[in-house]
Amino acid sequence: MTTQPLVGVIMGSQSDWDTMHHATDMLEQLEVPFEVRIVSAHRTPDLLFEYAGSARERGLRVIIAGAGGAAHLPGMAAAKTTLPVLGVPVQSRTLNGLDSLLSIVQMPAGVPVGTLAIGRAGAVNAALLAAAILAPEHPGIDAALSAYRQRQTEAVLARPDPREAAS
Amino acid sequence: MTTQPLVGVIMGSQSDWDTMHHATDMLEQLEVPFEVRIVSAHRTPDLLFEYAGSARERGLRVIIAGAGGAAHLPGMAAAKTTLPVLGVPVQSRTLNGLDSLLSIVQMPAGVPVGTLAIGRAGAVNAALLAAAILAPEHPGIDAALSAYRQRQTEAVLARPDPREAAS
Amino acid sequence: MTTQPLVGVIMGSQSDWDTMHHATDMLEQLEVPFEVRIVSAHRTPDLLFEYAGSARERGLRVIIAGAGGAAHLPGMAAAKTTLPVLGVPVQSRTLNGLDSLLSIVQMPAGVPVGTLAIGRAGAVNAALLAAAILAPEHPGIDAALSAYRQRQTEAVLARPDPREAAS
Amino acid sequence: MTTQPLVGVIMGSQSDWDTMHHATDMLEQLEVPFEVRIVSAHRTPDLLFEYAGSARERGLRVIIAGAGGAAHLPGMAAAKTTLPVLGVPVQSRTLNGLDSLLSIVQMPAGVPVGTLAIGRAGAVNAALLAAAILAPEHPGIDAALSAYRQRQTEAVLARPDPREAAS
Amino acid sequence: MTTQPLVGVIMGSQSDWDTMHHATDMLEQLEVPFEVRIVSAHRTPDLLFEYAGSARERGLRVIIAGAGGAAHLPGMAAAKTTLPVLGVPVQSRTLNGLDSLLSIVQMPAGVPVGTLAIGRAGAVNAALLAAAILAPEHPGIDAALSAYRQRQTEAVLARPDPREAAS
Amino acid sequence: MTTQPLVGVIMGSQSDWDTMHHATDMLEQLEVPFEVRIVSAHRTPDLLFEYAGSARERGLRVIIAGAGGAAHLPGMAAAKTTLPVLGVPVQSRTLNGLDSLLSIVQMPAGVPVGTLAIGRAGAVNAALLAAAILAPEHPGIDAALSAYRQRQTEAVLARPDPREAAS
Amino acid sequence: MTTQPLVGVIMGSQSDWDTMHHATDMLEQLEVPFEVRIVSAHRTPDLLFEYAGSARERGLRVIIAGAGGAAHLPGMAAAKTTLPVLGVPVQSRTLNGLDSLLSIVQMPAGVPVGTLAIGRAGAVNAALLAAAILAPEHPGIDAALSAYRQRQTEAVLARPDPREAAS
Amino acid sequence: MTTQPLVGVIMGSQSDWDTMHHATDMLEQLEVPFEVRIVSAHRTPDLLFEYAGSARERGLRVIIAGAGGAAHLPGMAAAKTTLPVLGVPVQSRTLNGLDSLLSIVQMPAGVPVGTLAIGRAGAVNAALLAAAILAPEHPGIDAALSAYRQRQTEAVLARPDPREAAS
Repeated sequence: MTTQPLVGVIMGSQSDWDTMHHATDMLEQLEVPFEVRIVSAHRTPDLLFEYAGSARERGLRVIIAGAGGAAHLPGMAAAKTTLPVLGVPVQSRTLNGLDSLLSIVQMPAGVPVGTLAIGRAGAVNAALLAAAILAPEHPGIDAALSAYRQRQTEAVLARPDPREAAS
Repeated sequence: MTTQPLVGVIMGSQSDWDTMHHATDMLEQLEVPFEVRIVSAHRTPDLLFEYAGSARERGLRVIIAGAGGAAHLPGMAAAKTTLPVLGVPVQSRTLNGLDSLLSIVQMPAGVPVGTLAIGRAGAVNAALLAAAILAPEHPGIDAALSAYRQRQTEAVLARPDPREAAS
Repeated sequence: MTTQPLVGVIMGSQSDWDTMHHATDMLEQLEVPFEVRIVSAHRTPDLLFEYAGSARERGLRVIIAGAGGAAHLPGMAAAKTTLPVLGVPVQSRTLNGLDSLLSIVQMPAGVPVGTLAIGRAGAVNAALLAAAILAPEHPGIDAALSAYRQRQTEAVLARPDPREAAS
Repeated sequence: MTTQPLVGVIMGSQSDWDTMHHATDMLEQLEVPFEVRIVSAHRTPDLLFEYAGSARERGLRVIIAGAGGAAHLPGMAAAKTTLPVLGVPVQSRTLNGLDSLLSIVQMPAGVPVGTLAIGRAGAVNAALLAAAILAPEHPGIDAALSAYRQRQTEAVLARPDPREAAS
Repeated sequence: MTTQPLVGVIMGSQSDWDTMHHATDMLEQLEVPFEVRIVSAHRTPDLLFEYAGSARERGLRVIIAGAGGAAHLPGMAAAKTTLPVLGVPVQSRTLNGLDSLLSIVQMPAGVPVGTLAIGRAGAVNAALLAAAILAPEHPGIDAALSAYRQRQTEAVLARPDPREAAS
Repeated sequence: MTTQPLVGVIMGSQSDWDTMHHATDMLEQLEVPFEVRIVSAHRTPDLLFEYAGSARERGLRVIIAGAGGAAHLPGMAAAKTTLPVLGVPVQSRTLNGLDSLLSIVQMPAGVPVGTLAIGRAGAVNAALLAAAILAPEHPGIDAALSAYRQRQTEAVLARPDPREAAS
Repeated sequence: MTTQPLVGVIMGSQSDWDTMHHATDMLEQLEVPFEVRIVSAHRTPDLLFEYAGSARERGLRVIIAGAGGAAHLPGMAAAKTTLPVLGVPVQSRTLNGLDSLLSIVQMPAGVPVGTLAIGRAGAVNAALLAAAILAPEHPGIDAALSAYRQRQTEAVLARPDPREAAS
Repeated sequence: MTTQPLVGVIMGSQSDWDTMHHATDMLEQLEVPFEVRIVSAHRTPDLLFEYAGSARERGLRVIIAGAGGAAHLPGMAAAKTTLPVLGVPVQSRTLNGLDSLLSIVQMPAGVPVGTLAIGRAGAVNAALLAAAILAPEHPGIDAALSAYRQRQTEAVLARPDPREAAS
């Protein structure tokens, strides 16, 4: 990935990668240049502030942050930048990600985090939403996004009968 | 509002206005041109499809959709456009907006809705996130957003002692 | 199934078939003619509108719609028809179907969805409720439904002692 | 109400009437003949069995049952009849109707209850769903239902701007 | 078990036996005479009414009822008898027994069900509570209950160090 | 109340009296002799142990314990006696009594608490269940309980039409 | 308060003062020197880092942090210090503080926050726990804490009968 | 462990050891002397009172208590001592530890329990918080705690790229 990354994908720990690679997979599919790294709000707070605080000047346009449990990464990133921050609640062991979801989505007025679904679907959709944000200025991303959406629709139309899936 | 609206603010019913005017108030404050109307997913589904389906060609860049209960408006708008759609869960009478939140945020992989907090905070933040999305191409919005964030920080710093609020 | 289908069974994705085949199994058992297909509210919104919008004139009398997560399929089908729509919340991966349930049942006043239990039980019962709706005009269905209920009662009465199940 | 009632509206206690009158108001508006009475699953179980057990032979076609808390009325009515039973979860004092909802909707396979939303919206929609069930055989109800839905759509279209509501 | 049963243990289906045999195991251990059978509120409502309605005159002193999901068995048994009814919420597949618990415990004023914990612990404790109810008139049960409680205390005291369990 | 109390009604604080007086009101109505006092598990743990530990020898037959929030009073009373303990979850300020309910009902195997509904209904029903426990040995209580249940049934039957309540 | 503060009480906004003054009231009662100020994780992240990062060297021994909704203040303070951090979930408007609680208590392994109850009780108890932490090295606090606990016990013992409260 | 224990780690049953050994593992790593034993609030209430009531004079400085379900151990220990009590909600079988969490954290004003996360993370963090409480008077613990926190930060910084974990 030698081009300027437009999306920064961060996550709180290595274990979040099982979820968050679905975001980077989709970004690759949509030809959105990105960077990815582990940044922990609780274990590396200074790194988080440096990362989010410098994201804009480093050329990033969107931050995607995934975290679980008392998930502070997306909200604290948002506190340190005016870039759009998209939050992915990672499914937690005990409360199934309800804690992750509420910790991310219930931000107070003044500092927004655009929150996606818990788990894999949320990671995929964070990438799609980032692409939608970038599309107006990046015709290639715009085309890739439209093509993806079109293919997805056609895939449903091509397999209308659920009884034939096993055949 | 004679300039081209960049944000379309829609809501499911008149009663959602108590919440959603906080979004338009913030858009005004940030000098983001917008349009606003009532579009009901359930009572006016054809209007919703027409609205969302034509939003991009009409020049909109972001859709903010607020709804409560079994809140289908944001997700169905997202199904009909590749524009970024931001969802605001309106607090419902019986379940305090938990139903609204889950109905909006738990979208399946493929069609994203960037979801904000339940109620007023979510409406305010939807406007702020829309501004963040628009900022790179609109220096005026970028400046207004940065100024808002700066003022907000200064307001906290200026009143450090909670015991003095009443004086 | 060459006779005119009376019930249209739709679901949001192939993965819902594990749940929804319990509905079609029961419809078959009750001799209710039906059709089944995958219709996604989010990936094929136009198909959904066409399907639900034409259901009545195509001779359908009841629509059974199953979906999970932010489940918009039943409610949006109901928005496009005056036929009775029955909703089956499919168990979701992260929140066990609580999101599916609330997304389906909490419809606003004006557009009803008769909601059944989460998962298999709900799929079975959607078929039974569809049969109950159709019974007055279809003596065969009425008889099959009564016979099913009778057998079910007798099955409990015939095995009163839970300790003998393994013998 | 001298014509043969087609819908029996029952509720567990007088206090449920605040919610359930919205069902009878809508039935009246749709010209659906109905009867209404208080039947308590817990305080008058024999009456409930007699009521539900004889409902079909007395000419009823649909039962609408509203109850709150550990709401057993809809499910037990369904256990005693093959008529379609629609359940309205009444908002409870302590748990906001979540207990009512789960007690009604989570019926086991074999005995269905078509469940509507908690509270007023659910009561209105139970009436609309009953009308939809009756419409094929009762052209007057069919026409009234279609007209209601049409008016509801037009009412939204006629007031597109939420800012004008107060004027 | 040829002596007069004092406790009637009922459950909604064969699948509840995995949970409810913990109740009968404990009743046996405490030498409480009991009977056990499957009685379904929804599939055999008449049997339930006959069972609960005649329980007292048949010499039963306590009813233990286990059920899952929209669990109506304990409450409807209580509606048909003045005997103490103890309810055991069986863990449900989708909502982990939260639906079972609320359906049983949230009874309206006038008809009580003494509710125990979800699942195995609740089944064991229903037996212990039944024994406590019967103890004043049955010295043998009283002695067995006290001995059980004593042994349970001693078992904890005898193994104070959790690190030695594997040795 | 000069006769030997059979039921001990305890509660964690004065503020619980708003709920718990419904229990003592019903005990009076059923002519069940009782005593009542404030015993706090957290503020007066020794008193609780003394109260529960001596309850049986002082002639009590049932303990009714009401508490809210992290409600430990019923379970700790049960830990110190083999008498039947009935728990009433008092509605808490923040979580509506869901915390109270789970803290009381989810007792581990070995020490039972028969739990009633949250709030007033639970307090009333605790008294009714205590009366049901005492009835076999106390004909007066048995008669009062049966009469109460009978009156309650007749009260519903006497007012079948909810529309006449205001007249 | 001219002596060296031992406890730093921070909160996310002025509106949290309604809850958090219960913490400072109790600290005063226990003669624990403290400081108090508004520090917002989201609006003044740099201040938060400076505050928490320098707390230890400034002589603070415990931090009490109150916040609501997506409450990141306690966890982010804990990320920047090894001092004990106590978190008070402030009751939120929509979800009653369940979001606040989960956002604070569900911290990942490595960075602890000792969490108290939602709302006023949590604020009071944070002060009491801070005093307990400080007591071994501060005999005056130790004595004040013991005296408070003693008075609290005596207050319950002095008013045993809830029926006399109004007299 | 021949030195004076400073932390007492207790748990309600042997089955809690799977969770709670993470607390003792961390205490060992931080060189905090501790003792550990099984103390059941419900099965050995007198032992609990003796343990907690004598903890301070026996030289303990912090109590860590883990329990699941209706978890009364931490709160009742706190009722019998002025030492800081830290509570670890053990994940329960049916409700995933939400019952454990609410039973521990929602203590009334007057008796605090510093509550950690559900399960393993909570056990680890209870040990870390105990070390933080002890650090000012025990330089060795202080150093070990700081070193642990430092290593944890460096471990994240050393592995920034989640894609390299498998290599």
